[in-house]
Amino acid sequence: MYTAGIDLGGTRVRVGIIDEEYRLLYWEEAFSEVGLGYEHTLTVIFGLLDRAKEKYVYNRIGICAPGPLDHRSGVLLDPPNLQSWGNVAIVDLVRDRVNVPVFLLNDANAAALSEARSGAGKGYESVWFTTVSTGVGSGYVHEGKLIQGAGGCAGEIGNMIIVPDGAVHSNLNPGALEAYASGTALTRISIEKYGWAGGAQEAIERAIAGEKEAIKLIDQTMTYLAIGLANVVHTVNPDVFVMGGGVMTHHEYLLPILKAKTNERVYDSLKGTFDFTYAAYGVEAGVIGAATYASLKLNVTI
Amino acid sequence: MYTAGIDLGGTRVRVGIIDEEYRLLYWEEAFSEVGLGYEHTLTVIFGLLDRAKEKYVYNRIGICAPGPLDHRSGVLLDPPNLQSWGNVAIVDLVRDRVNVPVFLLNDANAAALSEARSGAGKGYESVWFTTVSTGVGSGYVHEGKLIQGAGGCAGEIGNMIIVPDGAVHSNLNPGALEAYASGTALTRISIEKYGWAGGAQEAIERAIAGEKEAIKLIDQTMTYLAIGLANVVHTVNPDVFVMGGGVMTHHEYLLPILKAKTNERVYDSLKGTFDFTYAAYGVEAGVIGAATYASLKLNVTI
Repeated sequence: MYTAGIDLGGTRVRVGIIDEEYRLLYWEEAFSEVGLGYEHTLTVIFGLLDRAKEKYVYNRIGICAPGPLDHRSGVLLDPPNLQSWGNVAIVDLVRDRVNVPVFLLNDANAAALSEARSGAGKGYESVWFTTVSTGVGSGYVHEGKLIQGAGGCAGEIGNMIIVPDGAVHSNLNPGALEAYASGTALTRISIEKYGWAGGAQEAIERAIAGEKEAIKLIDQTMTYLAIGLANVVHTVNPDVFVMGGGVMTHHEYLLPILKAKTNERVYDSLKGTFDFTYAAYGVEAGVIGAATYASLKLNVTI
Repeated sequence: MYTAGIDLGGTRVRVGIIDEEYRLLYWEEAFSEVGLGYEHTLTVIFGLLDRAKEKYVYNRIGICAPGPLDHRSGVLLDPPNLQSWGNVAIVDLVRDRVNVPVFLLNDANAAALSEARSGAGKGYESVWFTTVSTGVGSGYVHEGKLIQGAGGCAGEIGNMIIVPDGAVHSNLNPGALEAYASGTALTRISIEKYGWAGGAQEAIERAIAGEKEAIKLIDQTMTYLAIGLANVVHTVNPDVFVMGGGVMTHHEYLLPILKAKTNERVYDSLKGTFDFTYAAYGVEAGVIGAATYASLKLNVTI
C-alpha cells in the first residue's frame, strides 16, 4: 500500500510517494505559479500525480498547504502565501479528479508529523517541531498523533505574545514571537541596523566567525525564541524540540545556544529533561508528512 | 467496581469513593497536619481509607497532591506546600498498607481530569482547565486523556513568561504569569496600593459594585490572564477553557471579561471558536479527579 503526498507552496508544488514505513520512494516538483490562479496550479498538481501513478498505485492522498485552512472540511481559507485564491475546496477538487480519499493539513503540522513518525523525533512520546524561516511555525505530535486543536491552530506559536504591547508584525498580536524571532525579523534588523545585505544568514555567519555585534544580535534572537519554547514547556512539556527551517541551518552553532537559554527559563526539576535536535528532513518534509497523515487515516472510504 | 480518591493538601486531606461513571458516592475530610510529619498525615489518610472501606470495596486508589512530584515513580519531590517532608514515596507507602494499585498525579491535573470527564468540560474533545487562587495552575485533557508531559509539567502556565525581564515571584521565571494574574498578586496590589484589607475578593467585589479604581485593577489582572490563555490557544488550541479557583468565584462577572480579552488576542479565524465555562466541581474536584485517574488505569496489577 502506497500513499501520495502533496506539498503545495507559494513557489513550488511537490508530489511524492511513501510506503507503509513512511519511506519516500519517489518525488517530483514543479513551479506552482499561484499567480495564474488555483485552476492552473491544480493542473500542475494533476500532471505530477499522473506521473507518480505510472510508478506506484496509491490509494489515498495527503495535501499540506500554508494556513489558514480548515483541515476538517478540506478548504483553504484565502492563505496570504497563495495570492488571491480566496477559499478553495481543495480536498473536493482533488478527490473528484483522482477518486481516492484526500486529506488536508497545514505545512508546519505535516513537517511535525514527518519528524515525529520517521525523522528526528522518532521514538519520543511527545514531539514539538518548530520551523524558523520567514515566520515561526510549529506542530505538536503526542503519542504519534498530530494534535491540531479546535480551530486547527495548535502550534501557531508565531502568534504567542511574549512582549505585552510590543512590536506589531502583519496580522499577528502586538508583541508576538514571530516579530522577534523569525528570519524576517532577523533579516530586517541585520539590514536596517547593521547594513548586512545578506540578512539573517549573514548575521549568523558573522556570529560564527566571532564578530561581537553579530554574536549579540543572534543571542538576542535566540533569547526570544527560548522564551517561546520555555512557554511551550510549561504548557505541554514535550520530550523533544525538533528545530527546522532556513534560520536553523547552522544548527551546530544555534542549537546549543537555544538549548541553554530555554533551560534557563524552566523549573529546576525540568532542566535537562527534554532534548533539542535538528530536523531530519528538509524540502521533502511536507510531502512525507502529508502522505504520513493520510496513511494514518485508516478505514476511510470516499 | 469502586475507586478511592485521596486529595492531599497542605491544610486538609480528603478521601472519597467514585463509581464507574465518576460519581462521588461518599467522602470525608480531616486536617492533614503536615507540620507533624508525613508519617502522621499517612496515619490520618489510613484512618479515612479504613472508614471508606466500611462502605465500599475499592480496588484501586488515586492520590493527588501539590507539585513538584514524579507521577511515574509515585514520589513527592519536597513540595513547598507540604513543609519539610522532603521526598516521600507516597505511592509505595500507601500500596504497602492497602494492597491495591495506587497512582499519583498533581492536584491541578486531577481537577482538570474531573472537569473533562464528568464536569464542565464533559463532551469537549480538548479541555484546558485553569485554577486561579494562590497560584495559577492548569491541566490539559485531550480526547479524555490527561497529558502530563515529559517531566509532569504540562499545564504549569503559572511559570509562562509574559513579560521579558519582568517581576520576580518566588521560584518562578521573571515576568511569569503567576506574578501578574494570581490571587496572591491581586491581593498584594489590593493591599499595598489601595489599602483593601480583603485582598483579591474585596477588589473583585468593589469592581462588581462599580468602583472605578477596582474595575481598572480587575481589568488589568484579566488582561494578563488573557495573554496567558491566548498563548495556550496558539499552542494547543483547546475547545474549552474551564476556569476554577477562589479568584474565579464571581465567574458571572469575570468570565465575560476574560473571554473578550482572550478573543482579542487570537487569529481572526479563531475568534469565538472556543468556549469559556466555570468549573463544575469545588473542593471535591481533587478527590474525583484522582479517583478518575486511577479508574482509567486499566489492567494494572500490583
